[in-house]
Amino acid sequence: MILEGKLLIGQSAVRGTEAAVHGVNPAKNQLLEPDYPGASQADIERACQLASDAFDGFRITSPLQRAELLEAIASEIEAIGQPLIERAQLESGLPEARLIGERGRTCNQLRLFAGLLRSGAWQELRIDPALPSRTPLPRSDLRYQLMPLGPVAVFGASNFPLAFSVAGGDTASALAAGCPVVVKGHPAHPGTSEWVGRAIQRAVASCGLEDGVFSLLFGEGNALGQALVADPRIKAVGFTGSRGGGMALMQIAQSRPEPIPVYAEMSSINPVILFNGALQQDEGVTQGFVTSLTLGAGQFCTNPGLLLAVEGAELNQFLSQAGELLSTQVAQTMLTPGIHSAYEQGVAVLAAHPAVTTLARGCSTTGPNQCQPGLFQVQADAFIQNPLLHNEVFGAACLVVSCRDYAQLKQVLEQLEGQLTATLFMDESDLPRAKEIFPLLERKAGRILANSWPTGVEVTHAMVHGGPFPATSDSRSTSVGSSAIRRFQRPVCYQDIPDALLPDSLKDSNPYAMKPVIDGAH
Amino acid sequence: MILEGKLLIGQSAVRGTEAAVHGVNPAKNQLLEPDYPGASQADIERACQLASDAFDGFRITSPLQRAELLEAIASEIEAIGQPLIERAQLESGLPEARLIGERGRTCNQLRLFAGLLRSGAWQELRIDPALPSRTPLPRSDLRYQLMPLGPVAVFGASNFPLAFSVAGGDTASALAAGCPVVVKGHPAHPGTSEWVGRAIQRAVASCGLEDGVFSLLFGEGNALGQALVADPRIKAVGFTGSRGGGMALMQIAQSRPEPIPVYAEMSSINPVILFNGALQQDEGVTQGFVTSLTLGAGQFCTNPGLLLAVEGAELNQFLSQAGELLSTQVAQTMLTPGIHSAYEQGVAVLAAHPAVTTLARGCSTTGPNQCQPGLFQVQADAFIQNPLLHNEVFGAACLVVSCRDYAQLKQVLEQLEGQLTATLFMDESDLPRAKEIFPLLERKAGRILANSWPTGVEVTHAMVHGGPFPATSDSRSTSVGSSAIRRFQRPVCYQDIPDALLPDSLKDSNPYAMKPVIDGAH
Repeated sequence: MILEGKLLIGQSAVRGTEAAVHGVNPAKNQLLEPDYPGASQADIERACQLASDAFDGFRITSPLQRAELLEAIASEIEAIGQPLIERAQLESGLPEARLIGERGRTCNQLRLFAGLLRSGAWQELRIDPALPSRTPLPRSDLRYQLMPLGPVAVFGASNFPLAFSVAGGDTASALAAGCPVVVKGHPAHPGTSEWVGRAIQRAVASCGLEDGVFSLLFGEGNALGQALVADPRIKAVGFTGSRGGGMALMQIAQSRPEPIPVYAEMSSINPVILFNGALQQDEGVTQGFVTSLTLGAGQFCTNPGLLLAVEGAELNQFLSQAGELLSTQVAQTMLTPGIHSAYEQGVAVLAAHPAVTTLARGCSTTGPNQCQPGLFQVQADAFIQNPLLHNEVFGAACLVVSCRDYAQLKQVLEQLEGQLTATLFMDESDLPRAKEIFPLLERKAGRILANSWPTGVEVTHAMVHGGPFPATSDSRSTSVGSSAIRRFQRPVCYQDIPDALLPDSLKDSNPYAMKPVIDGAH
Repeated sequence: MILEGKLLIGQSAVRGTEAAVHGVNPAKNQLLEPDYPGASQADIERACQLASDAFDGFRITSPLQRAELLEAIASEIEAIGQPLIERAQLESGLPEARLIGERGRTCNQLRLFAGLLRSGAWQELRIDPALPSRTPLPRSDLRYQLMPLGPVAVFGASNFPLAFSVAGGDTASALAAGCPVVVKGHPAHPGTSEWVGRAIQRAVASCGLEDGVFSLLFGEGNALGQALVADPRIKAVGFTGSRGGGMALMQIAQSRPEPIPVYAEMSSINPVILFNGALQQDEGVTQGFVTSLTLGAGQFCTNPGLLLAVEGAELNQFLSQAGELLSTQVAQTMLTPGIHSAYEQGVAVLAAHPAVTTLARGCSTTGPNQCQPGLFQVQADAFIQNPLLHNEVFGAACLVVSCRDYAQLKQVLEQLEGQLTATLFMDESDLPRAKEIFPLLERKAGRILANSWPTGVEVTHAMVHGGPFPATSDSRSTSVGSSAIRRFQRPVCYQDIPDALLPDSLKDSNPYAMKPVIDGAH
């Protein structure tokens, strides 16, 4: 199995003709072969047209057929074996164990949606039966289902080369919904992307589905992404990346003759509130914090970038322990030179800010593109007055905001933008204070945690990986967990439609596991 | 009970200080007293601040409490009695029977959401229980619910002075979700709005809820609406009106520092396909068509503005009968002078177009602002070449597109923008052809009907009043029916949160009717 540096358009593999992207080994600052010449406008058009042509056929496949597709993708990914892990390591600088775990999550994710399709209520079927003898007017037979939006453009993310990339959560949920997918492969891991893309190609073929169900394109710069989002055949967008990138895509999507939804996960500093009771007990809070902060060089959307606590002896002791622990953390290679230089810049801004104290730095770097962790502190007044300090620093940096009292801590929270997560460390004695700020956290975040760190994101039914702007562009959804499928669906009502025309799931003889809600009665 | 011409801000009633709006009796072109001076910036701020202050308290009221609020609003509206109907008649020109029916629908709508709150699955509760002994890592306890977005700005619509105005579908679904509402009263029926607004005020007070749960503002021109949508305390918008108006609000909402969702229902010509089999049988199709077209002077979002059929003897006979029937229809007063002049203009464009034939007009007008129905015809080629002919003409005008064959009919459908409805008139013999275009209709419309006219919109669980752009700004939702509540909700996940902090519905002791889905098992 060799990497060919090709675009995957339906079942074909073609060399692009535009400026190429290259993987880079960030641990050595070395270009990786092969190069991936970019998609031309004609390539983009072809992928979108194939997706559009495949849509009507794909969306009426049975849930079982789509479950089989998702399971086949998972198996094909596993079948690549060690070469996939090695290539992902080379391209991302992430450790092997992490990538093996991430592959497991990726396949679990695909299988979660397969399970949902087999048994879940993902189509929200509703039937209000006809009432022919109702007066003054009879009622028609009304049937309701969610149907897929149409072809979806998925943008691979750099920080999860498997779980949020070519066959990641966006792709899995879009395919589950019945939407063909056109992926813009992340330029940081084109080789990993090609192999995973070929796994999907094989699964599409072995399941006997139409070519256009899946394509994978590469392109340098922003032109490919912009063209995809502007293409009239694309009906929704899944994106994980920077705030600037997400905002640009939202702008394009809204300016189309037909605006489309963009699900962009963009920016979150994930405030963690350390109550005094919890600090007094500690019980692993310090260790947990440093582990969570430095996990994967801090390159998680849910990295704890902001600690809030009331100043005093408890906080001082926590910070001195945490600083000590942090200073022993070795530097880890970051995903790309670009991410590394953005981290360096973000940390430099913190370090140079007159109101910010540097509490601790991790071990010095020993190679290129390494992340030296950092712990910084600022008084709440200064934090409130400097919105610049509210920005995400992607990597293992955390800013501690020390507050005069809980009233001020609440003020700080009020100032924050929308977040993916908000976390409380508390014990029984903190309950009254936690109660007071809890409603605020519900308004600010998509997930609220008590006494555990936000970096672990379970892929289950009750997970929400989303949140108010700018955490995401659309707080009404999640990008992780089974309810992510809802992003790519819209309701359609069928009024007095003859059985022969109804979708199978709404026929009286409904062959699927999903049962409709009749007259609203659950 | 007299009308005072006041803004209702929380429980207060105050005279505005800006340029006033006046009701107009469209049947006589007469200004109606009192005047309604517009809201100042300070009034807007106050209403939004009250709504924002009320949010946390309102959203944690029990479903039962909110059900009682909705039922109290319905009772208060009914208690106004005949004066409300008379005022609505004066302001809208709509007949008494229609307004009595519309009041019934309005109250049913409020009670539908009350019923949903009492027993429905509107919060989509999910629990993935903790797995403390899972390896390699234990799983946290994860609980999921939909929570309300925050204060909602609702724009009253002119064409449903009761059912889509102050206490209409948007208000009912937003209040049901737990969102405080600030209504911009439609300037065409301020008196009706004041009375309904006061009914809501009384209901809010009698239910012991916070003032800010509801406010009603008036204002001339676009400034009030723009200020409301731009206000950072407003978190979502419900709007029914013109395409231009809806697009302007979408633009403002997207340009905010924190973009918010806009649910704008804007424009639909509701294509009706008359298959030959159905035309041969007729069986009331002609009569049904003319009744649907002229109902309420055609001022329905779901008015059948476009008929598609294959040219031939069957179509000719249908058109000659429909034309004859139409020519006997009396002219009806339209809602406002503005709507009437837009109708006249739209009809003039059709009549003057070289490719369009005027098949029939209804009876001549006998008073101001009357709608003289119109039936027009164009060949499919010309229709395809003239996108101008695809525009909605709001009122009792219909354009018949005659197609060479079914392939061309399909071409015409492909050219259409998104629609609220698409309708098939067909019999058994038409089934193969209907099957061929059905997938296209699913992609284009929010509701598909067979052998009935789209103007009746049931308020039930399976209804979809929505559709792809520009029918609405957000095809993922409906503005009629119980699933409209989903527009004003977003998911939140609670991870390992102590029982004392969990929302009641997610506590182990959940006191409500709604049961969570455990581990995805329905």
